[in-house]
Amino acid sequence: MTLPVLAVTSGEPAGIGPDICLDLAFAGLPCRPVVLGDRDLLRARAAALGKAVQIVDFDPDSPHHEAGVLEVRHVPLRVPCEAGRLASENAAYVLELLDTAYQGISDGLFAAMVTAPLHKGIINDGLPDGGFFSGHTEYLADKSSTDQVVMMLAGGGLRVALATTHLPLKDVSAVLTQPLLESVARIVHADLRDKFGIAAPRILVTGLNPHAGEGGHLGREEIDVVIPALETLQAEGLDVRGPYPADTVFQPFLLKEADAVLAMYHDQGLPVLKYASFGRGVNVTLGLPFVRTSVDHGTALDLAATGKADSGSLIVAVETALEMTGSCRAAQAV
Amino acid sequence: MTLPVLAVTSGEPAGIGPDICLDLAFAGLPCRPVVLGDRDLLRARAAALGKAVQIVDFDPDSPHHEAGVLEVRHVPLRVPCEAGRLASENAAYVLELLDTAYQGISDGLFAAMVTAPLHKGIINDGLPDGGFFSGHTEYLADKSSTDQVVMMLAGGGLRVALATTHLPLKDVSAVLTQPLLESVARIVHADLRDKFGIAAPRILVTGLNPHAGEGGHLGREEIDVVIPALETLQAEGLDVRGPYPADTVFQPFLLKEADAVLAMYHDQGLPVLKYASFGRGVNVTLGLPFVRTSVDHGTALDLAATGKADSGSLIVAVETALEMTGSCRAAQAV
Repeated sequence: MTLPVLAVTSGEPAGIGPDICLDLAFAGLPCRPVVLGDRDLLRARAAALGKAVQIVDFDPDSPHHEAGVLEVRHVPLRVPCEAGRLASENAAYVLELLDTAYQGISDGLFAAMVTAPLHKGIINDGLPDGGFFSGHTEYLADKSSTDQVVMMLAGGGLRVALATTHLPLKDVSAVLTQPLLESVARIVHADLRDKFGIAAPRILVTGLNPHAGEGGHLGREEIDVVIPALETLQAEGLDVRGPYPADTVFQPFLLKEADAVLAMYHDQGLPVLKYASFGRGVNVTLGLPFVRTSVDHGTALDLAATGKADSGSLIVAVETALEMTGSCRAAQAV
Repeated sequence: MTLPVLAVTSGEPAGIGPDICLDLAFAGLPCRPVVLGDRDLLRARAAALGKAVQIVDFDPDSPHHEAGVLEVRHVPLRVPCEAGRLASENAAYVLELLDTAYQGISDGLFAAMVTAPLHKGIINDGLPDGGFFSGHTEYLADKSSTDQVVMMLAGGGLRVALATTHLPLKDVSAVLTQPLLESVARIVHADLRDKFGIAAPRILVTGLNPHAGEGGHLGREEIDVVIPALETLQAEGLDVRGPYPADTVFQPFLLKEADAVLAMYHDQGLPVLKYASFGRGVNVTLGLPFVRTSVDHGTALDLAATGKADSGSLIVAVETALEMTGSCRAAQAV
């Protein structure tokens, strides 16, 4: 039996990305997680951490699935890397990891992409004048000519998708339009079906305001935006329900009837997910033409090479990508 | 030993308030929970539910603490009550329950007040022209000439206080000023100390924006409002820390070092609390000159007299009030 091959980008070299990628050598996952990164950096980090990991160059036709062996697709650092110290010269390296993973997916070499954290600030510092990098997700959407993606986090038995993401709180109401909400819900529905193998996804949708607006007394966005969007979507046959008050929707009697919660903004949906998953949440990008998952933490520069980094989120991210590619294959086979 | 006497207002008579109050007769609490309500209504509801509860009139000097016996301070309904059907004529009754509890606290008869849910809409329908009832909390603040109160929920091992409460989301940023945040934090600090008996309360404060504004990239309220408020409060000796991203603050390694989280708005703080407490959260009003706790659910008109109401939140509300009066007494005795 051939094991699926997944690309794992090791991210910012000065952060914990390389550290947590090393643990994949011992994770015993039913796949070949191929780490994209500098092989010497990974060897040096393994030595610093006292991890007996054998780094071998990735060869598609020569699988290595033994415990302690890590398959690496070598991408060379631009300048030497010191743990915890960012270097803008390596911005091009971090982006090359993503480009290589994307190319490998396009070429059929990799079944999915899992990303370790990068540092947006240093990438922007390292870009030529006029370049701007706004994040993993936007970069991959742009490369794959995807108009709209949706951020979903999974963990602790929950899936939470967001209608809006990284915005100042005061701007959320203006950004949340009926067309936006409808297209987000359609993407969530389609990807739960096609990438998670859920035949008829059930989605619970929150209101924007406390108590879901309480009939207009605490804001009108439910009446003007959310309810009309839900009616349109329901008429299309989507199983979307709501709007629910955000402090009601995360209760067992509702959650057991749902495949995902669609929250209106970042801090309405993610605190519960992160609480429930004990920091083992996985970030899933919906709407891309391929499977991409990510850890839900940052580069943690101060923990790099200390042995204190927790690879739990990365391992769950690989497992989730694997689950999704299985569903993808099953869906394509139908 | 004399048991503390607590007033429990049974709230909207057509809702589940009377139902859940009956369960106090069997809760075996180390106090005398005196239910304020119409004794005939309570008898009729007990009969409808098949609960063998003996209703006795409250007499301060003649305690009844036997299982199955409920002490009731009789307040007569204005018109007969049918379960599930609101009647505006009984608005004055619901308010009289609160007035009676407040008067009893002022007279030293009751050590604290625990409130079952009421229905704001029907009270406003029943008020004379020009009257407006905005809620339990505001009513009690007004009666006791309290300028500012703070809503805090407790449950599931967490305490979450809110800087702003029932506002449209788009108005939160404008309402959250530095003086407001400072006075809220001072009230939380003082009541954790004086009513919960925590000598040096530790409070974790969230930012307003996702990622706590990410250094100004996702909103400036942290820089302009939250951080200056924290610096002022820290200079006064308060142990307030932050601003934390809301999706980071509810993690065990932070929570174990804290007595409460102060969230900036309703849906940032309460979803985790309600998730963690499985619907057994207790609403505590901080800043009042007496102890008041409340259930964290509504009147559930459709469940009244059906036997499906869960008295868990009410019982925890009584236990919490009891814990707080114990701390109050201890604080006064010092």
